[in-house]
Amino acid sequence: MSTILETNNKCNLSAVLYQKNDLRMEQKPILEPKENEVLIQMHCVGICGSDVHYLTHGRIADFIVKDPMIIGHEASGIVYKVGEKVKTLKPGDRVAIEPGVPCRTCSFCKEGRYNLCSQIYFCATPPDHGNLSRFYVHAADFCHKLPDHVSMEEGALLEPLSVGVHACKRAGITIGSNVLITGAGPIGLVSLITAKAMGARRVIITDIQEHRLTVAKQCGADYTVLIHKGDDEQELARRIHEELGEAPDKTIDCSGIETTIALGIEATKSGGVIVIVGCGPNNVRIPLIKALSREVDIRGVFRYANDYPAALAMVASGKVNIRQLITHNYVLEDTLSAFETAKTGAGGAIKVMIHCKEGITLENAILNQG
Amino acid sequence: MSTILETNNKCNLSAVLYQKNDLRMEQKPILEPKENEVLIQMHCVGICGSDVHYLTHGRIADFIVKDPMIIGHEASGIVYKVGEKVKTLKPGDRVAIEPGVPCRTCSFCKEGRYNLCSQIYFCATPPDHGNLSRFYVHAADFCHKLPDHVSMEEGALLEPLSVGVHACKRAGITIGSNVLITGAGPIGLVSLITAKAMGARRVIITDIQEHRLTVAKQCGADYTVLIHKGDDEQELARRIHEELGEAPDKTIDCSGIETTIALGIEATKSGGVIVIVGCGPNNVRIPLIKALSREVDIRGVFRYANDYPAALAMVASGKVNIRQLITHNYVLEDTLSAFETAKTGAGGAIKVMIHCKEGITLENAILNQG
Amino acid sequence: MSTILETNNKCNLSAVLYQKNDLRMEQKPILEPKENEVLIQMHCVGICGSDVHYLTHGRIADFIVKDPMIIGHEASGIVYKVGEKVKTLKPGDRVAIEPGVPCRTCSFCKEGRYNLCSQIYFCATPPDHGNLSRFYVHAADFCHKLPDHVSMEEGALLEPLSVGVHACKRAGITIGSNVLITGAGPIGLVSLITAKAMGARRVIITDIQEHRLTVAKQCGADYTVLIHKGDDEQELARRIHEELGEAPDKTIDCSGIETTIALGIEATKSGGVIVIVGCGPNNVRIPLIKALSREVDIRGVFRYANDYPAALAMVASGKVNIRQLITHNYVLEDTLSAFETAKTGAGGAIKVMIHCKEGITLENAILNQG
Amino acid sequence: MSTILETNNKCNLSAVLYQKNDLRMEQKPILEPKENEVLIQMHCVGICGSDVHYLTHGRIADFIVKDPMIIGHEASGIVYKVGEKVKTLKPGDRVAIEPGVPCRTCSFCKEGRYNLCSQIYFCATPPDHGNLSRFYVHAADFCHKLPDHVSMEEGALLEPLSVGVHACKRAGITIGSNVLITGAGPIGLVSLITAKAMGARRVIITDIQEHRLTVAKQCGADYTVLIHKGDDEQELARRIHEELGEAPDKTIDCSGIETTIALGIEATKSGGVIVIVGCGPNNVRIPLIKALSREVDIRGVFRYANDYPAALAMVASGKVNIRQLITHNYVLEDTLSAFETAKTGAGGAIKVMIHCKEGITLENAILNQG
Repeated sequence: MSTILETNNKCNLSAVLYQKNDLRMEQKPILEPKENEVLIQMHCVGICGSDVHYLTHGRIADFIVKDPMIIGHEASGIVYKVGEKVKTLKPGDRVAIEPGVPCRTCSFCKEGRYNLCSQIYFCATPPDHGNLSRFYVHAADFCHKLPDHVSMEEGALLEPLSVGVHACKRAGITIGSNVLITGAGPIGLVSLITAKAMGARRVIITDIQEHRLTVAKQCGADYTVLIHKGDDEQELARRIHEELGEAPDKTIDCSGIETTIALGIEATKSGGVIVIVGCGPNNVRIPLIKALSREVDIRGVFRYANDYPAALAMVASGKVNIRQLITHNYVLEDTLSAFETAKTGAGGAIKVMIHCKEGITLENAILNQG
Repeated sequence: MSTILETNNKCNLSAVLYQKNDLRMEQKPILEPKENEVLIQMHCVGICGSDVHYLTHGRIADFIVKDPMIIGHEASGIVYKVGEKVKTLKPGDRVAIEPGVPCRTCSFCKEGRYNLCSQIYFCATPPDHGNLSRFYVHAADFCHKLPDHVSMEEGALLEPLSVGVHACKRAGITIGSNVLITGAGPIGLVSLITAKAMGARRVIITDIQEHRLTVAKQCGADYTVLIHKGDDEQELARRIHEELGEAPDKTIDCSGIETTIALGIEATKSGGVIVIVGCGPNNVRIPLIKALSREVDIRGVFRYANDYPAALAMVASGKVNIRQLITHNYVLEDTLSAFETAKTGAGGAIKVMIHCKEGITLENAILNQG
Repeated sequence: MSTILETNNKCNLSAVLYQKNDLRMEQKPILEPKENEVLIQMHCVGICGSDVHYLTHGRIADFIVKDPMIIGHEASGIVYKVGEKVKTLKPGDRVAIEPGVPCRTCSFCKEGRYNLCSQIYFCATPPDHGNLSRFYVHAADFCHKLPDHVSMEEGALLEPLSVGVHACKRAGITIGSNVLITGAGPIGLVSLITAKAMGARRVIITDIQEHRLTVAKQCGADYTVLIHKGDDEQELARRIHEELGEAPDKTIDCSGIETTIALGIEATKSGGVIVIVGCGPNNVRIPLIKALSREVDIRGVFRYANDYPAALAMVASGKVNIRQLITHNYVLEDTLSAFETAKTGAGGAIKVMIHCKEGITLENAILNQG
Repeated sequence: MSTILETNNKCNLSAVLYQKNDLRMEQKPILEPKENEVLIQMHCVGICGSDVHYLTHGRIADFIVKDPMIIGHEASGIVYKVGEKVKTLKPGDRVAIEPGVPCRTCSFCKEGRYNLCSQIYFCATPPDHGNLSRFYVHAADFCHKLPDHVSMEEGALLEPLSVGVHACKRAGITIGSNVLITGAGPIGLVSLITAKAMGARRVIITDIQEHRLTVAKQCGADYTVLIHKGDDEQELARRIHEELGEAPDKTIDCSGIETTIALGIEATKSGGVIVIVGCGPNNVRIPLIKALSREVDIRGVFRYANDYPAALAMVASGKVNIRQLITHNYVLEDTLSAFETAKTGAGGAIKVMIHCKEGITLENAILNQG
């Protein structure tokens, strides 16, 4: 049972999703951190595609919003109070919040794959509350302390970046790899940034929107390919081979639809790997045999495990610029507008960032992004 | 260019596939082994499903029988003559013939995955001749010397067994693994035998034919599940979990069709692996998302690489009985009948073995199987 | 803080090590299990070499017996009472006790290598109490439920067997491996049993005591080599190669001394692995360059992580006979005699087992071993 | 047998090592390339520490210079003539020469570890001739074609760089790794460059010479530590931990002596890896138990296998500057002076490069390095 620390109903403005298309800004109680937890004053929370999907559909697969749920899981903040056994953090520490806290006792947890834990608490996956609010309580060991020179926005972006790290690790990208990424949305871009940081020789990225490819170029893509509906996968694979000079040995699909999976299968070098991050329909019709008979391995990605440290190291190194993903900024009070922008993609929105600290102005927030 | 050693047209009876449904027994010249090759007096050649497929369809995928091709690739024999640089073998040595000889210079060959070499010479894959004949020439280093106590039949069976070894290695089976095998044909059975030899805790195997499951039981299956057309995959997965007491962490699909792949995806434990050996249609409609979102990896198998030594070690250890796969025996002269049996599966045929040595009688051949 | 359940000082006879050569049988309070713990009525506890070392030296490396410590960590028992949140176990369940309970929050724990956790509670490693007593409290998720047909003795033996599993996994033993094991004490024997269960082709084992090699033969060793003090390592390596027919690709050193490590380095095939389980002196003088220049990897073993399930699977399969390691049995009251036997190795002692249940007679204990 | 293409004894000036301290410049016949070989007009050959060692000692371990041997193995050149079956190269192609050509038939070759092939032909390892000459014949598939923008000097430097790639791959360096490198000679520097290119978080490097650390800084080292004879390893390890903020999880020892190995063992994080590239004395006295009991793996490096492509990709990407390793340049005629510089290290010599093309002037050679 959680204890309520503060019930003053003006202190903890939160974005609560009641059901499909029913997101409300409400005051919520502030909880007391338990012995291994910390209370965090929230600073930045990015909007993820899954947040938008919960808003517009009320569910993702079997995860259904039945009770009002605080949304948000790409987050950073400042430790406000620590539980009595917490030794690794103290008030004032700036932290990125890894949103999933697993059971710690099942075989997945013990074997290092805690993302597969069926009992995991995961922010803003129903019925677990997220952290798009003023204050939030989390397990201390899933709060990653940020060095001074890493901004709060970057802290929040470690969440999608960790997906990119997990995807690239699952793909086995290393020095000399030739990489194909299908889809230049946020996940495609963080995968691109990570692949280059891991020493990928060349990265080629595809999308159906020209402006996304422009951003991809800025993020380090060596080649971009604009795709049109109805393009033939074999023909596209040929173009990709031509551009790269050879077949990519690693493909990361960030779309999850039949055509991009088929393209990945066609394009990837024998003995290579296709990692599929995107989530499409339940059933897909794909030329599986072309992967199997050439020993092209197919691997999924479910969130991340043990990837925050590498994501933080990348950002802290100063070599990657993850902030360029942020195209729009809002303060917490304007959360509904922020979601509207994220939903419509208006103004070429890639990543929409919400600033949660009471009294912060947007001007200040943006100024501090450095 | 190859030199002809002996043109006496009565010495090298061979099974030549001219085209679809046109298999002929013919005399062929005996070739002189080049410096790193050996001439082998053939003893045993098993019939593989692919051999039957070439006979009945004249092709597999893009491999088309255009010119007459000697068939056969699951083979063993006795070294008759060695090329001048051969040091590892001498006349009289009993050998299993690994049928694929790769280019040795491409990146696949150099990286240890020579099965993916695009220039590989592979017996009885058009246009490369196989070895269902009296005499055959092969690269010395792809002839594996048999210990005295390993029979010629076992030598020939190392070929399908190597597929099982490759599949189980690709699956990462080890001590304590729980394994599901879908399909109890020859490849399902060699996978079963290998999985048990690798220390798999429990193996459950499915098939649509009762008699195959009976053989599977004899080969060490812990549980068998008879499948009927139209069975629901989710329901089957539940039954498999019930029988095993938990979900299998490794699945080897030896059917390659939509329903068994779907079953594998449903049944396999999160974080596990499905290896698909079977080859089905070009396009399949499968619930891929259920594998991806649980990080169940999908891996194909294309023949084998560096697996003959382990296959031979298994057989030589005396712990596995691979001979029980042989249900029918024929002499070379009766090859057409042998193929008829393999094609129809008459008499519960699993593996049909052809004995090639001139003058051998079937009685002697079988007697010597020990 | 732990709560005392029962202070009746006649209920919980325990073996308490006060300091070097000062082991006493004493009554200890019975603790109340916390919410995720279980109280266990102890049944079997084996004596490990480290237990004897603590008794005779009062320390191992930097672990020093400063306060009285209950000894024992190779253990099994029956659940007597469960904490309020325990769902996986119930009173009456027979369990093997994995003796190390890690912190669950450090990076080692999260990455699946909890044996390296610096905060781990490990039975009978000072200052943590062991479980050679009538009753003992442990984390529920580190109690492995035994099937009915696995005996309590086997449950206790899962502890050393898990070391063998961990060693063989670290060595990468698989089907076809040729294995050299140096040292035929309990750890050498469990490594041997595990290697064979994993499909090792041949295992050759060395020792300086003939009677240990005899037991090794019974445990499945293909070859044994009796070693004499002063034997030349290169000469021994040659003998091993001769016996095996080739160099072993995996070596497991269960002695940890200069001469056996040197032998392992000399004997192991290029590109192979030497796993060193044994713990010798702080500094050793070894021909390291002979390993490095042939890319023979050297790997240590520290206890085990995630290995109990495989160890249990091996025993439960009925294929391995681990009970043959038990050469002597004692009841708890006779613990001092048991340690005397373990210490002197009198009567060819390999594994000495202590039976802890109140009122049990040795005759009954042995009768039930099956 | 090789055929002589050209015996005009003024065309192929070569550096021939007769024995210890007896290196002579001599004319040698030009050989005709066999069907899968190419004749190369040599351009750049770097001097390696092993070349100097052969010059000063006449041997390395069991490799003894018995007959006159052309020296040199870090090389690049231009294809002059191709064997009749060569399809991947044509006259005029600029190539880096991977100096080891393995047997292609042993198990090491087939398993992708051809560096361990016992029959490998390796330039300038007795009795195999090297390529410090005007013309040289090599297997076509071990000549790596250079893109136009990669210089001949860089081509030659791919050889030591491949050692760095092999070492970093063996260490498992990836994004976020913290790396300790002991020794800032050429191999330490290429390891440093590679580790950073692979996404290492921080690299700390040690040496006993200040000026080497200065170069290391220029090559991207995050921290440098000057070591003095007699420094205590535990104290040094503490300093390294302090500088890095934590223990390195990967250590690459490029010295191979007792003290640096001991330092690596002390400093490396539990569960980490020490790769030892350097070759020291036959026997070393080291605190092995400190590695074993923390599961710090020890791995050697012998040359490289399948690493040239990644080394080339790194250089071709333009992100790494490998040319800064070259401190001195000589023309072929001045080979003896070049060796003198390499031997004494005069002028802070790190890598000495020899330009082999007839008629080239040093001014031109250096001008073209770009």
